[in-house]
Amino acid sequence: MPGNIRNLAMEKVASTVLFPCKFSTSGCQVTMLHTDKGDHEEACEYRPYSCPCPGASCKWQGALEQVMPHLLNQHRSITTLQGEDIVFLATDIALPGAVDWIMMQSCFGHHFMLVLEKQEKYGDELQQFFAIVQLIGTRKQADNFAYRLELSGHRRRLTWEATPRSIHEGVSSAILNSDCLVFDTSIAQLFAENGNLGINVTISIYVLIYFELERHSPFPLAKYVWLC
Amino acid sequence: MPGNIRNLAMEKVASTVLFPCKFSTSGCQVTMLHTDKGDHEEACEYRPYSCPCPGASCKWQGALEQVMPHLLNQHRSITTLQGEDIVFLATDIALPGAVDWIMMQSCFGHHFMLVLEKQEKYGDELQQFFAIVQLIGTRKQADNFAYRLELSGHRRRLTWEATPRSIHEGVSSAILNSDCLVFDTSIAQLFAENGNLGINVTISIYVLIYFELERHSPFPLAKYVWLC
Repeated sequence: MPGNIRNLAMEKVASTVLFPCKFSTSGCQVTMLHTDKGDHEEACEYRPYSCPCPGASCKWQGALEQVMPHLLNQHRSITTLQGEDIVFLATDIALPGAVDWIMMQSCFGHHFMLVLEKQEKYGDELQQFFAIVQLIGTRKQADNFAYRLELSGHRRRLTWEATPRSIHEGVSSAILNSDCLVFDTSIAQLFAENGNLGINVTISIYVLIYFELERHSPFPLAKYVWLC
Repeated sequence: MPGNIRNLAMEKVASTVLFPCKFSTSGCQVTMLHTDKGDHEEACEYRPYSCPCPGASCKWQGALEQVMPHLLNQHRSITTLQGEDIVFLATDIALPGAVDWIMMQSCFGHHFMLVLEKQEKYGDELQQFFAIVQLIGTRKQADNFAYRLELSGHRRRLTWEATPRSIHEGVSSAILNSDCLVFDTSIAQLFAENGNLGINVTISIYVLIYFELERHSPFPLAKYVWLC
């Protein structure tokens, strides 16, 4: 079929031509080979931000600076707590079906969105909870922080520490890959009180220290240390 | 049917008679009402210890003092590491089917058995890992310790802290209730290197501190603090 005949001459031209980013009208000045356009545009800082509320019900898109005004105007029910160290209280965790709990945390001059998502799998045999933190900011800004989520009970503690996601990439792929705090209903019940689950959330500045343990050590030389 | 007719006179007699523990021949001197026998005998320190290796393949039973000699003689392949802070390296975690990894850790004059168990659920759709520590000792001795299991990767860390189980109660009920470190294959892959998963294990003496935050505080007054 004619559509499958390759135009090698045109391909050769295309492989040397630099194309503008599709967000050039928003301010991006990058030009690139067409083979690089997909990756760039997915990560391009001029790509509009979507509403960071989990679940795809809100279709809003806009600039980063407009995200907080959008949340404050259109999602007024979201609670905000101030401080680096707060408690994210998820009420009625036994509610059936898929449920999202959301809260905002403000510290270090930034706004973080805390998300707890409950999913049902294998019919409704397995209920899994996923907890994660995303920064209302760019990926580069998110890399400057670390977060800790902690479930604490009688002589038991479950802790997850990681880098916040930027709302530009969102949390859905992290939840899909279990790259967040994951726990099932049994664990939720171990730590819940009266059907409510308190998650201690601590945001900190991420500090990377590189230890060269021994110059001639047979072991990997880099060791990452968290200072939270 | 005659078997269902209650002998109320005999029941009244039985409710006042004290029975000896069925482990009296092993040294238990407790006597109790027949209604209390079940609970006591399950927890009775004179009840023989079973082999603590997970999976029910070894049917050995004996006194607490005989457990370590049994392990050393009959389960020679189990590695032992000395120290409070060691790495439990589980190799080939992608092996199909249900698999147990076991290691011994010796510190504070005691022996601890580290168990990592992989289970397949919902056909083989979900693979879950359960990691837990049990003390070769009594429940009372186990209460004096705390353990921490830690998966550590690039800017990610998952930590579980709890009280070791005594081998007298075993780990199966804790695993069944997810009262241990639970993670799925995606998380295992996040932290594994070349198919092997290193779990940092730290044993510590458990210290309980009771803070009376404020005498007239509206919040619960007790707060448990871990000193690990």
